[in-house]
Formats: sequence, C-alpha cells, structure tokens
Amino acid sequence: MRVAMMSDLLTEVLIPVASVVGIFFSLLQWYFVSKVKLSPERQTRGAHDHGKNGYSDRLIEEEEGINDHNVVVKCAEIQNAISEGATSFLFTEYKYVGIFMVVFAILIFLFLGSVEGFSTKSQPCTYSKDRTCKPALANAIFSTLSFLLGAVTSIVSGFLGMKIATYANARTTLEARKGVGKAFIAAFRSGAVMGFLLAANGLLVLYIAINIFKLYYGDDWEGLFEAITGYGLGGSSMALFGRVGGGIYTKAADVGADLVGKVERNIPEDDPRNPAVIADNVGDNVGDIAGMGSDLFGSYAESSCAALVVASISSFGINHELTAMLYPLLISSMGIIVCLVTTLFATDFFEIKAVKEIEPALKRQLIISTALMTVGIAIVSFIALPSTFTIFNFGAQKVVKNWELFFCVAIGLWSGLVIGFVTEYYTSNAYSPVQDVADSCKTGAATNVIFGLALGYKSVIIPIFAIAVSIFVSFSFAAMYGIAVAALGMLSTIATGLAIDAYGPISDNAGGIAEMAGMSHKIRERTDALDAAGNTTAAIGKGFAIGSAALVSLALFGAFVSRAAISTVDVLTPKVFVGLIIGAMLPYWFSAMTMKSVGSAALKMVQEVRRQFNSIPGLMEGSAKPDYATCVKISTDASIKEMIPPGALVMLTPLVVGTFFGVETLSGVLAGSLVSGVQIAISASNTGGAWDNAKKYIEAGASDQARGLGPKGSDAHKAAVIGDTIGDPLKDTSGPSLNILIKLMAVESLVFAPFFATHGGLLFKIFWNGK
Amino acid sequence: MRVAMMSDLLTEVLIPVASVVGIFFSLLQWYFVSKVKLSPERQTRGAHDHGKNGYSDRLIEEEEGINDHNVVVKCAEIQNAISEGATSFLFTEYKYVGIFMVVFAILIFLFLGSVEGFSTKSQPCTYSKDRTCKPALANAIFSTLSFLLGAVTSIVSGFLGMKIATYANARTTLEARKGVGKAFIAAFRSGAVMGFLLAANGLLVLYIAINIFKLYYGDDWEGLFEAITGYGLGGSSMALFGRVGGGIYTKAADVGADLVGKVERNIPEDDPRNPAVIADNVGDNVGDIAGMGSDLFGSYAESSCAALVVASISSFGINHELTAMLYPLLISSMGIIVCLVTTLFATDFFEIKAVKEIEPALKRQLIISTALMTVGIAIVSFIALPSTFTIFNFGAQKVVKNWELFFCVAIGLWSGLVIGFVTEYYTSNAYSPVQDVADSCKTGAATNVIFGLALGYKSVIIPIFAIAVSIFVSFSFAAMYGIAVAALGMLSTIATGLAIDAYGPISDNAGGIAEMAGMSHKIRERTDALDAAGNTTAAIGKGFAIGSAALVSLALFGAFVSRAAISTVDVLTPKVFVGLIIGAMLPYWFSAMTMKSVGSAALKMVQEVRRQFNSIPGLMEGSAKPDYATCVKISTDASIKEMIPPGALVMLTPLVVGTFFGVETLSGVLAGSLVSGVQIAISASNTGGAWDNAKKYIEAGASDQARGLGPKGSDAHKAAVIGDTIGDPLKDTSGPSLNILIKLMAVESLVFAPFFATHGGLLFKIFWNGK
Repeated sequence: MRVAMMSDLLTEVLIPVASVVGIFFSLLQWYFVSKVKLSPERQTRGAHDHGKNGYSDRLIEEEEGINDHNVVVKCAEIQNAISEGATSFLFTEYKYVGIFMVVFAILIFLFLGSVEGFSTKSQPCTYSKDRTCKPALANAIFSTLSFLLGAVTSIVSGFLGMKIATYANARTTLEARKGVGKAFIAAFRSGAVMGFLLAANGLLVLYIAINIFKLYYGDDWEGLFEAITGYGLGGSSMALFGRVGGGIYTKAADVGADLVGKVERNIPEDDPRNPAVIADNVGDNVGDIAGMGSDLFGSYAESSCAALVVASISSFGINHELTAMLYPLLISSMGIIVCLVTTLFATDFFEIKAVKEIEPALKRQLIISTALMTVGIAIVSFIALPSTFTIFNFGAQKVVKNWELFFCVAIGLWSGLVIGFVTEYYTSNAYSPVQDVADSCKTGAATNVIFGLALGYKSVIIPIFAIAVSIFVSFSFAAMYGIAVAALGMLSTIATGLAIDAYGPISDNAGGIAEMAGMSHKIRERTDALDAAGNTTAAIGKGFAIGSAALVSLALFGAFVSRAAISTVDVLTPKVFVGLIIGAMLPYWFSAMTMKSVGSAALKMVQEVRRQFNSIPGLMEGSAKPDYATCVKISTDASIKEMIPPGALVMLTPLVVGTFFGVETLSGVLAGSLVSGVQIAISASNTGGAWDNAKKYIEAGASDQARGLGPKGSDAHKAAVIGDTIGDPLKDTSGPSLNILIKLMAVESLVFAPFFATHGGLLFKIFWNGK
Repeated sequence: MRVAMMSDLLTEVLIPVASVVGIFFSLLQWYFVSKVKLSPERQTRGAHDHGKNGYSDRLIEEEEGINDHNVVVKCAEIQNAISEGATSFLFTEYKYVGIFMVVFAILIFLFLGSVEGFSTKSQPCTYSKDRTCKPALANAIFSTLSFLLGAVTSIVSGFLGMKIATYANARTTLEARKGVGKAFIAAFRSGAVMGFLLAANGLLVLYIAINIFKLYYGDDWEGLFEAITGYGLGGSSMALFGRVGGGIYTKAADVGADLVGKVERNIPEDDPRNPAVIADNVGDNVGDIAGMGSDLFGSYAESSCAALVVASISSFGINHELTAMLYPLLISSMGIIVCLVTTLFATDFFEIKAVKEIEPALKRQLIISTALMTVGIAIVSFIALPSTFTIFNFGAQKVVKNWELFFCVAIGLWSGLVIGFVTEYYTSNAYSPVQDVADSCKTGAATNVIFGLALGYKSVIIPIFAIAVSIFVSFSFAAMYGIAVAALGMLSTIATGLAIDAYGPISDNAGGIAEMAGMSHKIRERTDALDAAGNTTAAIGKGFAIGSAALVSLALFGAFVSRAAISTVDVLTPKVFVGLIIGAMLPYWFSAMTMKSVGSAALKMVQEVRRQFNSIPGLMEGSAKPDYATCVKISTDASIKEMIPPGALVMLTPLVVGTFFGVETLSGVLAGSLVSGVQIAISASNTGGAWDNAKKYIEAGASDQARGLGPKGSDAHKAAVIGDTIGDPLKDTSGPSLNILIKLMAVESLVFAPFFATHGGLLFKIFWNGK
C-alpha cells in the first residue's frame, strides 16, 4: 500500500483556504447585489454602477415608471414587511429550536455517557482491540458538542441565506425594470450567496471541529470521528425544523391565501388586498430557501460524517493517513472551487438577453458544474488517495483502489444530474407528461388528479434505477464508504445547486412585489418568466435533495450497522422483517401527519382571511389595508405547533425501536423507511410540480393545445387550479419532509448506536431472553 | 415426537366430505334464490314459497307496483342484458386467458425441465440427500399440470360466481318490494353461493390433485409438493386477469358513465338513458365479484401451497405423516363447516326487519365466523398435529409444538378481523374520519382530496401493525410455515368473507335495476340501504384481501428462499439492497400503469357515450334507447388490451430478475415490493372508499353536519363527487391490483426457483464471475 501524493500539511492548508475563498466569493456576490439601491434618489446611479454585468441598459427607457419614486418606496416597504415576517418566524422558531437543542443535547449526553456507566477510564478500542481508546464519556461529551456545532452552523447558514433572499427580492423587481438579464443576475447572485455561504461554512466548521477534537483525541481517530457524527445529527435536526416547520408554514399561507383570495373572492394571486399575501411571500423564503438549505446542509454534513466514521475504522484511520482520511472534505473543497468557476458562466461569461434563455442558462449551470467536477474528483482521487487501501466492510476489510473510489464519487455526481433531468422532464410544461396532465383537465378536476398521481408514480422509475445503479456500483467497489462518497459526489456541487434553487423563490417574491407595488405588466411578465424557470429548477433541486437523501441515509445506515457491530441484516428473521414492513409504513404515517398539519394550519389562515375581508370595511375596494401581521403570526404559530407530532415521530422512532426492540429491528426500520420513503418523496414532489406547471401551461397559452384549454377562468383552468392546490402540500411539505424522515432516523440511530448495542432490545431481553 | 391423534384414513375422508358439504350447501342457497321467479305469472306464489325465511310478508301490500307485470318483465330484461354483458366479457377474456395459459404452461415446462437438461433419471433429493427423488422433468410436467388445474379451478369458480350474481340481482330488486329483510336474504344467499363454491372447489381440486400426483410420486413428497405449487401459480395468474382486467373494466365503465352522465348531462346514476349504464353494472360483477373471487382464491391456493411445500421438507414430510402434512387442508375443511354454521345466523337464526340492522348483521357474520373458527383451529391443531414436530427454517430444523401452530393460525385469523374493522372505521361514514373528509368539501375539491389522501395514509398504520405482529408471532413460532398457516388462518373464513363481499355488488346492481326499471322510490331506498352496507363490507373485504396477500406473499417468499437454497437475504449486500429499492418502486410503476389504463379506457367510453348522446335523437328525452352493447364491447376490449402492460410487468419481472440477476436480487425485489406494495394497496383502497362514502354521507343528509354540506348539487357535493371519481380507480383498480403484483411475483419466483437457482444470475456470472 502506497501513500497519497498530497502531503498532510497541504491538506491542512487547502481545506480552510477553499472554505475561506467560498465565503469571500459569497460576500462579493452580496456586495454586487447591494449595489442595487432601494432608496429612490440613488436608483439610477446604482444601476449604472453595475458596469460590465449591466450590459445594455437600453430597456430602461422603455419603462414608464423608472423614475417613479413611489414605486421604489413601495417595493422597499413590501420587502421590509416580508423580511420582518421571515425574521419573526425564524426567531420564534429559534426559541423552540433552543429548547429542543438543550433537551436533545442532554439526551445525547445521558444515552452515550451511560454506555459504560459514565466511567472516565480509557477502554480498548472497538475495532483495534490492541489499542486504547478514549472512554465512552468523552464520546458523549464530544458528540454533544458536535451536535450543537452542527445545529448552530445550520442555523447561521439558514439565517444568512434568508436574509440575503429577502434583501434581494425587491432589488430583483427593480432590476426587472431594466431588463430580464439584469433581474436574472440579481436573483442568481443572491442565490449564490446562500449556496456558497452554506457549503463553505459547513466545510470550515467541520474542519475546525475535527482539528480541535484532535487535540483531545490524539491518535484515537475511531473515537474522534464517532464523536464527529454528532455534527450530522445537529445539522439534520435543524433541517427537521426548516423543512417540516418551514414546509407547513409556506403551504398554510399559500393554500390559505388561495382558497379565500382566488376561489372565494376571485382576486388574483399576490393581490395586496389579500391579508395572507405577505405571509405567502414569507413562506417562499421560509420553506424553499431556509428549508431547502437546511435539508441540503444536513445531507452534506451527514454524508461527510458517514464517510469519515467508516474511514476511521478503515486503513486510512488505522494507519493515520490524514490526507486520505480527509478525502471527503477535499472533495467538498474542490466542489466549492468548481462551483465558483461555474457561477461565473452565469454572471460574467454569458449574457441573458431574452426570456427564453433563462432556463437553458440555469440548466447549463448544472451541466457545467457536473462536467468540471468530474475532472475535479479525478484530481482529488489521484493525488489525495493511496493507489490501494482497505475499507471496513461489515466486519472485514475490503481492498479498494483509488480509481474505484473515483467512480463511486463520479457516479453519485452523475446520477444526481440524471435525476435532475428526469425530474425536469416530468415537471416542466415543455414536455408531453405535463401537457397530458393539462389536457386531462378537459374532463375535469378528477381526471387531472388521476393523471397527475399516475405521472408522479411513473416519474419514480428512472430516478430509482439511477439510485440503484449508483448504490450497486459504489457498494460493490467500496462498501458503505462508497455509498457515502457517492452521496458526497451528488452533493459536491451543492453551492451551484442551492444557488439555482434559491433563485426560484427570490424571483417568485420579486413577481409578488411587482404585483403588490402596482408596477407595470411588463415587469410582471419578466418576473413571471424568471419564476417559471425557477419552478422547474426548484423541482430539479427537490430531485437532487431526495436522491442525495437516499444515498446519505443508506450510508448512515451502513455506518450505524458498522458501529452497532451487526454483520448481517437478514430479512429472513422476524425481527428484521417486522422492522422492514413497519419502516415502510412510517413515511405514510409521517405524510398523513404533515398533510393534516398543512390542512389545519391552512384552515386557521382561511378563517382569519375571511374574518378580515368581512370585518375590515373597504378592504375589497382597496381603500383599506389588511392586517398582514396577524396572518404572519398565524402561519408562524401554526407551523411550530403542527410540526411537533411529525417531528416527534421522527425523533422518537429510533429511540423507542432501538431501546426496546434492538439494533436488528431498527436496521429493518431504517431500510424499510428508506426504500419506501424515497418513492413517496419523489412521486409527491413531481406530482405537485406537474400540477403547478400544468396550470401555468394553460395560463400561458403558448400553444394551440394550451389555448384550447384556457383562458384563465375556463373550466379546464379551474380543474387545473384544483390540481395545483392539492399539489402544494405534496410538493412543498409532505414530499420533501420525507427526506428528513429517512435521514434523521438514520443519523440518530448512528449517534445512539453504542447505546443501543449495549443496552438496546430491552423487550427481547425481558421476554425472549435476548433471542 | 408423538403422532397426531387423527388417523390418516379419517383425514382422507374428512377433507373431501367437507368440500362436498360446502358444494351442496352452496347449491342449496342457489335453489333458494331461484325460487324468486322472474316471470310475472308465478311472482306472488314464488314469494310465498319462501316460507320460513320470508317471515312477515306484511310489506307486500305497501307497494303499489307489486302486481305490475311490466316491472318484472323489465327487471328480467335488464338482468339479461347485464348477464349477457358479463358473459361476453368473460368469454372474450377466456380467449386471451387460453393463449396465456398455453404459453405460460410451455414456459413452465421448458424452464423447469431445463434444470437438469430434461433428464429422465431420478436424482438425490435436495433436502434429504440419502433419498432418491423424481427427476426435474417430472417436476416440470406436474408443475405444468397443477398450474393448469389451478387456473381452470379459478376460472370455473369465478364463472359460476358471476352467473349466480347476475342471476340474483334482479331477484333482489323484486324481493325488495316485499321488504328489506327479504332483499337482504336474497342478496346474501347469492353471495354465499359464490363463497362456498369457491372455497369448496378450491379445496376439493387441490385434494384430488395431491392424491393423483401421489400415484406417481409415491414417497417423494418433496417433489410432489414442489409440483403442487403450480396450483397456486395457476390460481394467482387468473387473478391477474380477474383483478387487473376486471378492475380496468369496471372503472372504465363507471368513470366513463359518470363523466358524461353525471357531469356533462346532469342525469342521475344508473339512469337507463346513459349508454354506459349496462357496462357499469356489468363492471360491478366483473370487478368486484369475479375479480375479488379470483384474488382470494389465488391467496387461498397460494397459502396452502406455501404451507405444503415447507411442510414437505419438515418432519411431516420427512416422516410421511399424512394427517399433519394435510393440516392446511384440514384447517380449510373446518373453515367450510364453520362458515356454513355462520351463514345460518344471517339467513335463518336472525331476522332483519329494519334498514339499520343490515350492517350489524354483516359485521356479526365476521365476528361469529372468527369466534367459531378459533375453536375450530384449536380442535384441528390438537387432533391433527403431533404434540411436537420440526419445521424447516432456512437450512435448519426448528422444533415446534402444536399449541404454537394454533397460535400462528389464530393470530392470522384475528388480525384479519382487526384489519377489517380498522378498514371499516376509516371508510364508513358512521365515524369521524369520513365525516371530516366530507366536511373538508366545504372548502372545495382540493381540500377534499388532500384530506382523503391523508386519511388513506393514516389508515395504513394499524393494519400494518396487525400484520407485523402476526408475522412476528408466527415467524417466531414456526418460521415460514407459521406465516403460511397464519395467512391460511386469515383466509379460513373465506366462504363467509366472500359471501359478504359479493353481497355488495349484487345489492348495487339491484339498485341499478330498480332505477332502470323505473320502480318506485321506496324500492330504491331499500336497495340503497343494502348497497351502503355493501360498500362498507366491500372495503372490509379489500382490507382482508390485502392483509392476506401480504402474509401469503411473505410465505411464498419464504418458500422461494427455501427452495432456492438461500439461507440469508442480507440487506447489507449490494445485490439485495438494489433489489429491495427497485422492488419498492414496482408498485408505483404498476399503479401508474393501471391508473393510466383506466384513464385511457374511460376516455374511449366517454367518447362513445358522447357520440351516442349527440347522434341518437330522442335519447336524452327517453324516447330512444341507447346502444348498450357497444359500450359493453368497448369496456371489454379496452380492459383486455390495457391489462397487457401491467400484466407483463408482473409476469416478466421475476423471470428477468431471476434469470439475469439471480436469486439474491430477486429476494430483494420480492421483499421490497411486498413491504411497499401493501402500504399503497391499503391507502389507495381506503382513500377511495372514504371518498365514496363521504359523498354518500352528504347525499343521505342524515345529520346536521351532512345537511349543512348538501343537498345533491351543492358546491360541497360537487367537490365530493370529484373525490369519489378520483377514488374509483384507486379503490377498485390500482389498489387491489397490487395484491396480485406482490403475490404473483412471489409465487412465480417460487415455481421457477429451481431454474433460477441452477441457471439464474447470468449477468453476474458473466461480468463478476458469479460473485
């Protein structure tokens, strides 16, 4: 076995440098966005400052309202209201997050500390019996610490992402006055701030944590990286709040606003007379930006931790090869650099001049980042890995070559792209599946729903094959380590992925602000074009998130099994099979809860909106202002309250199953919920996306078929609106929340594995004498 | 090890006697039904003949139309049309079934014959190496034979069941003139004909086959019962045609009729002006009677075969203990007797005098049969089994006691009851879940759909726990044999279950006939009451069918694994895990196909119905008759054509996976599709059932809440109709068809296991050198 070409010192330097570059690049983007001024007097000059990226300012003159100070002031006001609403949600959430963190930190400490009865004595290592490892108590303390670190990093990244998003939406609206290209750049740059901040912060904090923990752990890498898994748990449990809480928030507001506004009062979307309109816009930020960000951050942290914990008991860890050990972090570092270059293609190398160039530009981002990253992975794999090494494989060591690991990472990366494009095919109205769904609206809402559900089911096929192939290849090459790095590969271009993803809600909000500020229809058309492209990329982003969640959970599952010292999970034993079938049921239970949560929260919103319409005189006429704040508060409170039951289901299941039924049943539960959950998540997201875009297809009326179905208000359009409303909770709440279900249960099991392995399976111990 | 108390001779006598008693009882019921005359002149006398069961004829006088000969003639006409339509569908289906049977029989012969290269030499047995067993060629021949036997038995039972159902529906209508109690008895008796015929025929043919095969096989029980598994495959592959083809037929007709009739033309359900109305009524028979019958017959045959094949390599088979070996058949014999007694409670011991007594009477049937059967199982277990014996458990022999086996069967039986009642709770409008769904119609179709989907997801929880507990207990006690007999336990009261189930569509048809014959509203109210109870029992029946399908598939899976000589199915190997995740995807693929099939077939129906309304003058006014036959033909042709893709998916998956990827991956696929499919099947059935009954709840207006939502034609009611239409394909096509997917793949794998074990996994053999 040879050693890696790259020296450990270089590794120790390169990782933080890449993170800092990422953070710097993100701040630079922020600076560019901030140059668009929201105060009227500097407006025109601010636009000229844009220089190179502003290209032709020729569109300025077309707009009648460019110097209308009132519009700018109004935009600033609305943005403020959205920003305040978002911040108020976050701070309310943080109160609960704080309580949760303290309670769960104590739980982690108690469970893990009790493994060896809080003894402070060093113990023989689990995998290298001849060495001495730090006591379980140290594991308890450092796991708790890294849990808190992961949680805080996730919170900070999410908070900053949301800040920039709510900072950028009105600016995008104003830029839209100058042209679609400028607006695109403003929205995209703001998305990039979020993407790079999150990727770089995540990497940097993890790197620092490893180095600080090493001061205590020294040569006990097994213990060190066991403790580091808390980081993944911390990141992922924040995603529970972000995805589930945020998902309930956004759809309660959206469905509530639509049911009264569009259906009962017949006023358009984003109409400022609708009291829930600000809550709806806040929801886009809360759900799609903070929620998505925390979800992907969780995946990223978890896949890194899963890879590290397996590596620590493989030859990398046993021989203390630092560079090879930190291979996952090096991949992520390379990812930041690759995404940085990719971003320049969107903001500097190409110019967007027409509406139809937007979607290709976004898709090009994905392709460029994937292609460049493939080279990047190859470089990292060849210089950072020894040509041959061994990987822990459920009790045995498996010999792996560096090019095999390259394939593991690359196949994850590319199957992410495949999933993204299949998702696009099934959810974009440029292709026949969505057009067929739109067509089925001719015979009413029922056929629309049937066709939409069937589309979602069908859209599962190729992504599952892509995931299956990735699993097979990476599993065959490098066991569970292969799966973990495949997940990391899929997530390596996370900065670009998040930029594209966050771009969507920013454009959506920009359109909302244009409507509310009463700007000209041309502006709205431009922001609508941005938003339509954003819709598709949002679906692609969800596809990515689900795909990576599947791989990550499997990697975590593998790491759990390794740490729990199980060598087979045999379906042909009652314990495992029962776990499997109950695990496969959990996503249904969870979805039922989240859908009901949205329903109840939306109902409260409906009542409030109705109340305002009935009790505020002059509201419908536009002479009185609605009380936006109450609606924001209702969404906030309802989302926090309603996320408790599904959250409890996720957090308690591994603890209950592990403690009472033991690690075999828990393995079954994890495998079952993974293979079942991923299907529902994909189909729910795509069904919802397809309905949304079928409705947009009819509204846009860009083809003969679409014109035959439209216009707005026709029977077919009404049927399409029903589909869209049903799809909202599916695609933005229950579907994506399943990512959290499968990942969080797996990472929690991993963190608590030593406890379950020692004290778990109480019921069997009592009744069946441990059999 | 002691021997069973019961002598082999007694066993050999008792089984055929029980079957013949069952068949005789069924014919007796048929005779009673036939006493209701459809020719006007004998009408009144026929009714008096009923004697004891006719109880008070006091209601006769109330009806104005009792002597209206026209009505009777009209009823007879309509019944004829339905009967002809059903028969024409069946005979069209049989053509394709015939081709399929021949092709598949050849396939079975070739695949199994090739295992030892068509050698005619005897071989050492697989499990008892010291004995000589018949050659693989014999297995090929006898498996093919038993496949054909199973298929033919299923066809004959289904055909007779459908005949009696279409024979009884107009008679039920006529009896309804005399009172709800009489109508109930007519419908219930007819259902019982179906139930007993199917249970008794299935048992008798299996018994005869075993005895004939024994003439050749002699002491080689291992080979004998291997060959018998073909019987399950035959039964189950007919269920593919019955459930999938029938499901597409019934819903194409129903949705097609509703979309034009109710939605476009605003005419009531079952209006004789609707050209699709006969097809719709035929569909009830085709889907709910023949389809359900073939499904349950398949489960019954499969669970018996799975139990027998495992028993043949356990101590029963090794020691040639015939009575113990035939324990599964003895349980079924006992089931026939118990159901016979149970039926008397409905037809003779109690009288139904009011509408509200119907549903309790049907539920009482379930409870009585379950309670009596528990005693029956105890008796059989104690007299037919040795007190201790061993059961084959994936390579080892496990010691089992007779009381343990009693628990295995009993827990299956009782968890069937639990599943039935939970299903009722979630689908009957007497309870809050359906009422909440109805209430959600206030805010439109979208909330109705969201709440309905959430209800379906939630309804999965308890049934899965019930199944999980059954699996755990029976698996722990007696390995895969325990699972098989638990499934058999759940199915032991199949005669009563089917009677209750078939009662539903008969009542539904009776109502349709009353409507079409223009009978008084009182009649329609009575048949509606019968139908409403039937709706709930249909949902219960589906719950049973799914629950037993889950247990049966697991038993078959276990038998497959045993025959393929795999001792562990380890999730932690890439081959198995990839199978698991792809298997979990198959139900989605399959559902997408069946839903699309219904959609396309319904579209054809819509076009035809529209064409008739537009081109036949006087149709809407009722002065011209529609062309029913064309609609029947469209449904027939479409259902046969549209079932090919989903059918091919089911039939080809095990062959492709087994041949190219081998038995481990196939195991993963089976386990994955089982744990995932059962959830979708339950949730789809219950969602559909809930929507149906939510609509009925609003229409009936029996509570303040319901009256607030209604009446027919209100916005809430329209929303409820949309939900009902969406639910139709879910509850009657895609949901129940999944039973077939999971069972058929498992039994096919079992039959082809020797081939896959010998020649399977080609891809791995070629590329990975068998690893």
